[in-house]
Amino acid sequence: MFVAKTPEPPYYAVIFTAVRTPDDEAGYIAMADEMRNLAAKEDGFIGMEAAGEREEITVSYWKSLESIRAWNMNLRHREAQTLGREKWYSSYHIRIAEVTRAYGG
Amino acid sequence: MFVAKTPEPPYYAVIFTAVRTPDDEAGYIAMADEMRNLAAKEDGFIGMEAAGEREEITVSYWKSLESIRAWNMNLRHREAQTLGREKWYSSYHIRIAEVTRAYGG
Repeated sequence: MFVAKTPEPPYYAVIFTAVRTPDDEAGYIAMADEMRNLAAKEDGFIGMEAAGEREEITVSYWKSLESIRAWNMNLRHREAQTLGREKWYSSYHIRIAEVTRAYGG
Repeated sequence: MFVAKTPEPPYYAVIFTAVRTPDDEAGYIAMADEMRNLAAKEDGFIGMEAAGEREEITVSYWKSLESIRAWNMNLRHREAQTLGREKWYSSYHIRIAEVTRAYGG
């Protein structure tokens, strides 16, 4: 299922938008996979959606700002962030948002 | 520029996540292009990011909930939404969110 199953709002979203470098594709793919599995084990994780290759948008959904903060402090996640800044991403932007309304079909 | 230029928070995001059907690809592409141009002319529009093909995430950024509401009422946008539900999307979800924090590199 590509569209994440999310509860009734309010809940929280981390919108990660990035442009990838061509460097170390295998390392990037392995780490992205590891991060998806690790995030899913965090308290307060709801779901995740990702699209794009070189130009990537990943949105993860969380029950609270505290759960986002805890995930951000995860040591392995910190290592991934450092590697991302050093070699995998030429630019990126992270936005933390409160989802107040949702609908769909 | 793939990563949208956005001001200091707070501002608002519309997170549109969808799975496309294989139907009427040319019509879909033309309409998506028209909607991007039309949205950019709306009062309160800040920017837009889109990634993915069959599995698509489009995030648009707005100055206020009122500007999102006005865009949602735009008649041509309404027509596009109806066509999207009828033929271009097999599933979709729309989330309205307030961006409260943003950072990046």
